[in-house]
Amino acid sequence: MKVNGKPTRTIWLESDGSTVGVIDQTALPHRFATLKLATLDDAARAIATMQVRGAPLIGAAAAYGMCLALRADASDEAIDRAYAVLLKTRPTAINLKWALDMMVAVIRNRPRSERAAAAYKRAAEICDEDVAINQAIGRHGLKLIEDIAAKKKPGEPVNVLTHCNAGWLATVDVGTATGPIYAAHDKGVKLHVWVDETRPRNQGASLTAWELGQHGVPHTVIADNTGGHLMQHGMVDMVITGTDRVSAQGDVCNKIGTYLKALAAKDNNVPFYIGAPSPSIDFALNDGAAIPIEQRGGEEQATMTGRTADGRIETVTVIPEGSPVANYGFDVTPARLVTGLITERGVLPATRDGLARAFPERVNGLRVGVGR
Amino acid sequence: MKVNGKPTRTIWLESDGSTVGVIDQTALPHRFATLKLATLDDAARAIATMQVRGAPLIGAAAAYGMCLALRADASDEAIDRAYAVLLKTRPTAINLKWALDMMVAVIRNRPRSERAAAAYKRAAEICDEDVAINQAIGRHGLKLIEDIAAKKKPGEPVNVLTHCNAGWLATVDVGTATGPIYAAHDKGVKLHVWVDETRPRNQGASLTAWELGQHGVPHTVIADNTGGHLMQHGMVDMVITGTDRVSAQGDVCNKIGTYLKALAAKDNNVPFYIGAPSPSIDFALNDGAAIPIEQRGGEEQATMTGRTADGRIETVTVIPEGSPVANYGFDVTPARLVTGLITERGVLPATRDGLARAFPERVNGLRVGVGR
Repeated sequence: MKVNGKPTRTIWLESDGSTVGVIDQTALPHRFATLKLATLDDAARAIATMQVRGAPLIGAAAAYGMCLALRADASDEAIDRAYAVLLKTRPTAINLKWALDMMVAVIRNRPRSERAAAAYKRAAEICDEDVAINQAIGRHGLKLIEDIAAKKKPGEPVNVLTHCNAGWLATVDVGTATGPIYAAHDKGVKLHVWVDETRPRNQGASLTAWELGQHGVPHTVIADNTGGHLMQHGMVDMVITGTDRVSAQGDVCNKIGTYLKALAAKDNNVPFYIGAPSPSIDFALNDGAAIPIEQRGGEEQATMTGRTADGRIETVTVIPEGSPVANYGFDVTPARLVTGLITERGVLPATRDGLARAFPERVNGLRVGVGR
Repeated sequence: MKVNGKPTRTIWLESDGSTVGVIDQTALPHRFATLKLATLDDAARAIATMQVRGAPLIGAAAAYGMCLALRADASDEAIDRAYAVLLKTRPTAINLKWALDMMVAVIRNRPRSERAAAAYKRAAEICDEDVAINQAIGRHGLKLIEDIAAKKKPGEPVNVLTHCNAGWLATVDVGTATGPIYAAHDKGVKLHVWVDETRPRNQGASLTAWELGQHGVPHTVIADNTGGHLMQHGMVDMVITGTDRVSAQGDVCNKIGTYLKALAAKDNNVPFYIGAPSPSIDFALNDGAAIPIEQRGGEEQATMTGRTADGRIETVTVIPEGSPVANYGFDVTPARLVTGLITERGVLPATRDGLARAFPERVNGLRVGVGR
């Protein structure tokens, strides 16, 4: 998507053919900055500190992290070490393991001299595949938005609520939850997005609002507390969020607070959709309750970073001295609350059968391209 | 309750017998500051800017605001003007109108020379009555907490979740939602409070955490998004919140986001209680959906105020330039989601019958002491 009018991805190979460029998402929305990752440790740090974040982008960054490791050392031991280092950067998004497995599958049985080149090729493919998946999610979701638009009075926008950032910043480009939104906007469908702030890290207010603004999509930032009230008053036509991991039976792990919006959607008959690329589906795990939930540092809850009236970036503490905090990163929305999973193969019911029929090759244990 | 070990109320008559002292709650949790209100406009400004807030405290402050108006001018016209000025400061909490009606009832039919004295006397009574009501809520709610504690393993705390601040800072003293919490803590019942941050104004992180900390009650500040996840994992034994207005059929208007927690409580069989003093019950309004919901300034959502590492208080903007915001202050939780209303007359079902049986004098239109 565009930044200051210029088409941009969240991750790219630099012109030297080996270092990897990324947008530093911790500087947004106040400053657009990029970073060069030159080593495995650079990549691991970028993922762990959330300079890059979002399940699909984490996968892409891990793939390139493996490339950077191989550039320094292409031994089996180095591959194992890089796999372990990258896998432990974040625990919840399954895309991380998915991408690492993809990478290992193409490099393991090659001569050492060919491994780095094969890895860079596969990492680039993973990035391009992510964009293609999100474009397909956009096409399928567009139909859902158009169906709602058709029932609206002339001039009335379709009101979409989203939580956290499952936008192009969370992916390589286009976004999962935002795929349908950008597709509709670009086609001229009138819509408006309610953007949940998404405490404690504010990915909604910082990232989703920023990217929608850059692309010209009408939106309004709201407190995470607000969505239920809006739904009670007919001010939300549909919810679309992303996911960090979908279980085989259709439970959806996503940013903390997603479950609360799903409950409100159910209570008010508002359709609740998930932009769910297949790399985010974990066919090896049936029950979403078993997904590990990341607990992050308390400072994310205790503080807020923003810009002062005179343009300085300051971090302020917003709790009393001595008050403990807890910071759970994700929750699990049971499949019963999910209207549909918008995948690259269509809008699927959030059921074991629905997922299995659309992705038979994954259910049979034959994970495409996965060798470990 | 205590501030730095010293018993303190949120509002008091100063030693000059006419000006009114309050805690400036906009300075908390970073600084404990007090203000002197000398005129009607001082009182109106303190309520509108939320230097004093919380439904019961708004009522008490409005009562004293009427006193300050009478001190300057005790004419019928001045009373009407003060009533109008104070009533429009905040739209949602019914305690404001309740207190103003109480005041008018005792001053209207007196000689002008006696009005101010009668008003100060009645305002002091309203304050003392609020404390007595909250103590009664505490006694009734204590029983609920003790019942849960009795089923816990030895050493395990009762985990209470609360939203916003319905603590002693929201009242004259003791608090509504916190009445049972302080009663249990003071009696030695082991408990722990999950404190919702409560965006956009952070009354949970700023005020509830501060007052629980001052009183030594174990607590943890969490993002508003977190409660559903905690309930899914058995980490919340009960929810207690306050209310700005309860409708005659038991719908509960409270801080935005309360409805989402009520949905999660229902979905996980967690009891959901409201600390509901009778002045917050609006017997003239059946359906909670008709309660006016205050929309406040967007800057509350767009910014955060806190202290920097070197101790300065700074306000920072946390959204992109140009992104619009919306700021709905309250939502309405339907009675079907409420386990019980903890009133000064006991724990009542959230039904028309339940409320009517406990407060028959209110249902018959004979609002106690209300003359207009």
